Parts: sequence; structure tokens; C-alpha cells
Amino acid sequence: MSGFRSLISADDALKRLLAHVDLTPQPSIAMPLEETLGMVCADDIHSPVDVPPYDRSAVDGYAVIADETLGASPTNPIELKLAGSVKAGENPLSVKRIRRGFAVEVYTGAPLPEGADAVVMAEHAVKKDGAVEITKPVASLQNVSRRGEDFSKGELVIRRGTRIRPWHIGALASLNITRIRVYEPMRVAVLSTGDELIELGDAQTPGKVVNSSKPMLKALIREHGCEPIDLGTVGDDIDTIAERASQGLKKARMLLITGGTSVGSGDLVPEAVARLGKPGIIFHGVRIRPAKPTGAAIIDGKAVILLSGFPVSALIGFQLFAAPIIEKIYNSPSGLPRRVRGKLTRRVANPVETTSFIRVKVIEKDGEYLVEPLMLTGSGLLSTLTKANGILVVSEGVEGFDEGEEVEVELL
Amino acid sequence: MSGFRSLISADDALKRLLAHVDLTPQPSIAMPLEETLGMVCADDIHSPVDVPPYDRSAVDGYAVIADETLGASPTNPIELKLAGSVKAGENPLSVKRIRRGFAVEVYTGAPLPEGADAVVMAEHAVKKDGAVEITKPVASLQNVSRRGEDFSKGELVIRRGTRIRPWHIGALASLNITRIRVYEPMRVAVLSTGDELIELGDAQTPGKVVNSSKPMLKALIREHGCEPIDLGTVGDDIDTIAERASQGLKKARMLLITGGTSVGSGDLVPEAVARLGKPGIIFHGVRIRPAKPTGAAIIDGKAVILLSGFPVSALIGFQLFAAPIIEKIYNSPSGLPRRVRGKLTRRVANPVETTSFIRVKVIEKDGEYLVEPLMLTGSGLLSTLTKANGILVVSEGVEGFDEGEEVEVELL
Repeated sequence: MSGFRSLISADDALKRLLAHVDLTPQPSIAMPLEETLGMVCADDIHSPVDVPPYDRSAVDGYAVIADETLGASPTNPIELKLAGSVKAGENPLSVKRIRRGFAVEVYTGAPLPEGADAVVMAEHAVKKDGAVEITKPVASLQNVSRRGEDFSKGELVIRRGTRIRPWHIGALASLNITRIRVYEPMRVAVLSTGDELIELGDAQTPGKVVNSSKPMLKALIREHGCEPIDLGTVGDDIDTIAERASQGLKKARMLLITGGTSVGSGDLVPEAVARLGKPGIIFHGVRIRPAKPTGAAIIDGKAVILLSGFPVSALIGFQLFAAPIIEKIYNSPSGLPRRVRGKLTRRVANPVETTSFIRVKVIEKDGEYLVEPLMLTGSGLLSTLTKANGILVVSEGVEGFDEGEEVEVELL
Repeated sequence: MSGFRSLISADDALKRLLAHVDLTPQPSIAMPLEETLGMVCADDIHSPVDVPPYDRSAVDGYAVIADETLGASPTNPIELKLAGSVKAGENPLSVKRIRRGFAVEVYTGAPLPEGADAVVMAEHAVKKDGAVEITKPVASLQNVSRRGEDFSKGELVIRRGTRIRPWHIGALASLNITRIRVYEPMRVAVLSTGDELIELGDAQTPGKVVNSSKPMLKALIREHGCEPIDLGTVGDDIDTIAERASQGLKKARMLLITGGTSVGSGDLVPEAVARLGKPGIIFHGVRIRPAKPTGAAIIDGKAVILLSGFPVSALIGFQLFAAPIIEKIYNSPSGLPRRVRGKLTRRVANPVETTSFIRVKVIEKDGEYLVEPLMLTGSGLLSTLTKANGILVVSEGVEGFDEGEEVEVELL
């Protein structure tokens, strides 16, 4: 009953663990796209097509030849003859070419008639009998979503290791991708040790304590996208612990053992684990509080994490040592804080009386965050959600932010 | 094809919505505790017992009468006779009362013998034949977990409206609570409209676009702990839209309709929704960008959210108007950022060469965050996790933080 021989820092302990553990990716399985929420994508997915597949109108209005609208104003409107109307969903091949002096009424999402190169918003036009008066000029490509602007053919849409969120499902659906490969959930086994423990729901007798760490750890394993394997609770007996742990290592890729890790319990669990294989215990006793008696072993490349039987210490041991291994194996980018402050890389303007939601890419550089607003022309651009990792909200009444200004960003 | 008659701010729109929508809680069902991860607790749950049920040792060491250790030091140890040993799990009623001049060897979690009022850590004692030399004095109650210190009988453990996380499962398990009441997942229906749309997986023909907003919205609904009802995709026909929407309102508690909400589509969806009941449309057109054409109706107390057909706008409309209703109905506390900076309400010390994880309660007060470190004596205290909402990490090499100092806290 003496102290740990030597304690290791949490950082060094994790480094040692990651250096020894087998981080081979999980096997992957193909799943229907809509069932993959929260799973981790196992392939780099490239766009098989251009999205949109043709130039289309980003607004309701009038397709025009931009240079014909030059100088238009409410007092000096420019009249164009109306050559029909095109709705979203119409076959672009059936849409007639536009001639000079003409405009075509177009709805949001409608294919842009050949020859037209811009769309005047409905608000800036007055429809008359067979004609339309344009009251504001447009530049070439204004209010047009270009072919391939959201995703161009061959472009990387989702990287291997991405945890699938709703916008990833939206982006892949827009490409008509119905199935993707995801990693099979990693199995993580939990074994509890302790003569004093009873299982949740068992009749309680004096001196006995309900094993609350195991249900908590199983829930943590689920939250990390893994499948828990419950190895039950065993008494403080070295043979039983070794046998049950050995079974667990056959069924699972990682093993958590709670209890029996403090020096007072006679090193029961470390001794049992040492029997299982090589290299065995790689650290035991960490310079943290609580959770000092946390330890880890490697058996044939698999991590065995020795956690305190106390729930709070078990939680901290899990977060420090089990979670990073799970993340590495899934190749999933590590969690960023949900909200960061960073410097804008370029100016952002906000129209009066409007709240704008600007999709941005937050990059960490030299210890500070840079906030890069994504260029965008339409609210249909799913790529701004898969390329963006944050939203900058510019509230009503704020005219915008200057380049270099510090802004707060909500991360996706 | 003109602009919206009047636009409303996002804040006012949400206020109007929350003032009209029926926020009655969902029906509740009893579920096995271990299956409730991520669900919302429907009852205030009070502790049926004291945890721990008796005073117990928080460390491995020697139970003593504290005043007998006064003045002990390595050069001047105080010798006590050993009167046996108590392990965790032993029946407290079978543990003998301690007499003056005696110590009892105790393991972490062991019942404290009657008469003893403190525990000397093993590191501060030297075991000899039939006796133990104490080298450091202890104060009364030192290294003792008091009966009811984690949860006292009758104490509120989890509040109605709490979304169940792993530590809640741990806390309830420690009370041997095997089933709890949770809210039934709220059903949210999604109907997509648009002649140009095809369903995910359908053969694509020129001009047609895959409906990517619906799979994304269904995933968002799932992420918010609700059950999506897929009402399919219908063309731009007012009767079909009205009929399908009406079916949706029978099956679900909220209805999302995508597309047909911009003015150019002839107000198809608003007109269809107006047929369904009273009071009908409560706003249409919001001063935000993108997602300006977002609208909402109330039909018999149920919210119908009119979302743009464009995925990014649909996402923003969902987050602004559907998510807050779901949160209110579940009575779930609104999401805080994951990491905050706040002022410490009292001093926190850190032993040398140790990284400490301090459970704290973060409170928002007058626009700033206050960080209140929770008192704690043992790493077994689950209550520090259910009462705490954050962890303050004090790294190795940092001696601590002063009262009033600003610290960064990781929220749970």
C-alpha cells in the first residue's frame, strides 16, 4: 500500500498510447445515404456531375443580354419584348435561344435561355403587355448560378473521415448519390471489477454499491459512434479478471476495465492484464486529479484502458485516452470549439434591415483563427455548407465588417 | 411577380410564432435507463436514498480518531495499534467500533468504522507488525466521503427537460434507478413541392433536380431528437399540396414545407396552407439573407414552417424557427457554446506536477459568465457532474487561479 512508483503526464501518456496502438481504419460497409447520419464516411467522395448541370436563374425575374440593360433606371426604363417564360424543371434543351431586344421571364432555378447572360430581378422590372420595362441595369452573369458552381464534376465533396451531418446528406443527395461507404462502428468492451459492486437493478444489500460507471461508459461509447460490449462485473479475483478481459479482447477492438487500478487493491487489474499478451502495461499512474490511477496496456495492438472505478475519474480517463484513439481510428477531425473569434480575411457587407448568414471557412494559423467568407451567388449552394465550417451572423443594423476585423463565428 | 409586401425581422417572427404555437409537453413513456441516451427526461427525479449510504473512506489508508494524529511527522511518528482491515463492499454493520489508540486499515470505498472520523492516506503511514506509524496529522472528516454527500435522500438529481447524457445515466444508475420517463419523440413531417424536383435515387432527366433539401431536413429533425415523417414530393399544384399537408398535420406535430414560398411561384404554398385552418399564415418574408421567403402558419396550434426549396435557406429557416419550437416543447435548456470564458467566483489551487480537472458551474449574469468551482472531496461524486455544467482544466505547472481571474471552461 504505497504510492505509484512514477507518474507520467497526461500528454506523454497519450503519446505513448498512440505510438503503440494499431490505428488501422475500421472495415467499411455501404449504407443507404439517409441512414448514415452520425456515421463516419470511409471514402473520399467526388462529384460525378456538375451541379447545377446548366446555367440557371438564381432569382425570379427576366433573362436578358446584360449589355442591353445599360443605363436603365426607373425614370429611364429600357423596354424589351417578352419571348415567353421558363420555369424550374423545364428541359434546358427545349428553351429557345434569346435574340437582342428580347427578354424571357424566368423563375428561380429555371435554365437560362441560350444567348442570355444575366437575370434582372422581378423587383427591378415592370411587366407590360408583351413586353417588360427594365428599371435597373445588370452586369454579365448577375443573378445567374453557373453550371458546376456548386460542385463541378470530379471535385472532392466529402473527405474520408468526415462525420456525416445533415448538410453532408443534402450535398450527396443533390448529386443523386444514394449509398455511401461508412466505417463499421468500432466495438469497445467494458469490464467492471470490484467485490463491492452490484449490477444496476440488482437488489441492494448493505455495503454493496451499484456499478454506475459501466452504464455511463457504455453511453459514452455510443456517443462516440462506437458499439459497447458489456462484459459484466466481476469480483476482485485475478484469474476471473484475466479470463473475462481476454474474452473481451476477442470481441472488441478496445477494452475498458474499471476498478482495481489503485495501488491499494493490490494491482489486481494490472497483473491480470499483464497475462494477456505483449507489450502489456505501457503506463500506470498519471499526473492528473482526479483519475490519477488511470493506466493503459497494449495487447496485440489493441488498447486496454485501466480506469478508476469512480465514475468521475472514469469519465476523465475515457475522454483523455479512449476518445482520442477512437477519433484517430475513424480519422475524424478532432472537435473544434463551437464558437470562435477570428480575423476576417476580406470585407463583408450587409444590406440595410437584413440579417445575413455568411458561410465562412475558419482556419487556424499561427495560433489565431482566420475567417474566410465564401463567395456565393445563391442560397442553393450546398457546397458552401460542405466547404464552410462556420456561419458568421451579421445582425440587422450592422453594415458589415472590414477586412482584418475580429468577428465571432458559430461553427458547424 | 413583385416583392414581399412587408418583411419582418427574424426575432419578431420567432416571437410571433412562439406566442401562437401549442407548447404542451409531449406525452411521456417509461424506458429502461440505459436506452434513454439523447432523449429528454420528462420528470423531475429526486434521489430515493443517500449516496453514499454511509460514511466511507475516500482513499486507501488508515481510519483513525483525528485528534490522536495531532503533531505526527516523519521524524516524530505517532504509533497506533492495528485493529483489522475493511474493504469496499463490506457490510458496515459488521465493522467494529474503533477505540482510542487504534487504527483500522481501510481501502477506498470501505465503510468508515464507527468512532473513526478521518482517514490517513497510505502514503502518510508506515505499517509495522500489528501497528501503524502515522507521519502526518489529519483533520476531522479528512479523506472521508460523508453519507449523502453525493446525493442526499429527496434531493433533485435531474430536472425535467434535461437531455440525457452519459453522466446522467451514471448518476441515476448510482441510485439504482432502472427506468425513467422520457418524452416521446415529437413527429415532424416534411413535404417538398416543386415541378422540377425528383426524389433521391430517381432517374434524372434534363431540367430535373434531385430534392436534396428533404433528406437534409429529415436528418436535422433526427439530430434534434424528433422523428421525421416523409410526406414525399409533390408538383406545384395547390390542391395536391393542401391535401398532402393536411394529411401531414394529422400525423405530426409540426410540418415543414419546402419550395413554392417565393413570390414568383405564385404564393402556391401559402394559399394551400391558408385552406387548412385558422389562424393560418402569421408571417411570410423575413429580413434575413438567405432564406428571405421563409414563412410560418399556425393550424390548430401546430406550426407549419414554409421553407425555401434551396437547401442552405431551408437549413437556416429550420434553425431559426423549427429548432426553437422543438426546444420549447421538450423544455430543454437552450444550447450554450461549448467553451466560454468567465470569472472565477473563488480561488482554485493546483498541486505541483498535476493537471486538475475541476468541475464548475457556469452561470450567466449581467451578460458575463461566472465560473463557480464545486466543492468536492472524492472522484466518485457523480453529483458534481450533474450539478456541474463545465470542466476547468488547470494544466501542470499552473499553480492555480485567483478569485476574479478569467478562465476558459469546457462546457459539458
